[in-house]
Amino acid sequence: MIFFVQVKVMPLKELLDPQGKAVMSGLQSLGLNTINDVRIGKNITLQIEADSADQAKKLAEEASQKLLANPVMEYFEISVN
Amino acid sequence: MIFFVQVKVMPLKELLDPQGKAVMSGLQSLGLNTINDVRIGKNITLQIEADSADQAKKLAEEASQKLLANPVMEYFEISVN
Repeated sequence: MIFFVQVKVMPLKELLDPQGKAVMSGLQSLGLNTINDVRIGKNITLQIEADSADQAKKLAEEASQKLLANPVMEYFEISVN
Repeated sequence: MIFFVQVKVMPLKELLDPQGKAVMSGLQSLGLNTINDVRIGKNITLQIEADSADQAKKLAEEASQKLLANPVMEYFEISVN
């Protein structure tokens, strides 16, 4: 069975996100002054062949730990559709 | 009121995603052979001051159209938490 798994990789909450800060000041120059904070991470869609949703989730976790996320700077969240 | 809005910006389905292809071959070298496809986009969290969730969503839409997404190569999805 084919599962579509979404992995969100975001910068750790304790860390400054310079890319987000740059985009925020861009939005403010465009007149969108009510946007107070912007944080930018990655959204990764995996198409995984697995027997069950649980197995697909485990594979996505392994992929995130080994390659997709850098635990020093990022955390990840997995959701299986 | 403060709303947290998530904007997912992904490469259009018709287009090749070279970053995703590179990550996929990386995963396969790590032995994760059951992952058949990888697509990589951005996940952007906005903190918006607005009167209602609808208004926050509209502001996020405006931000996405004007700055966050490039409609030639990307589509975006908005969800308000």
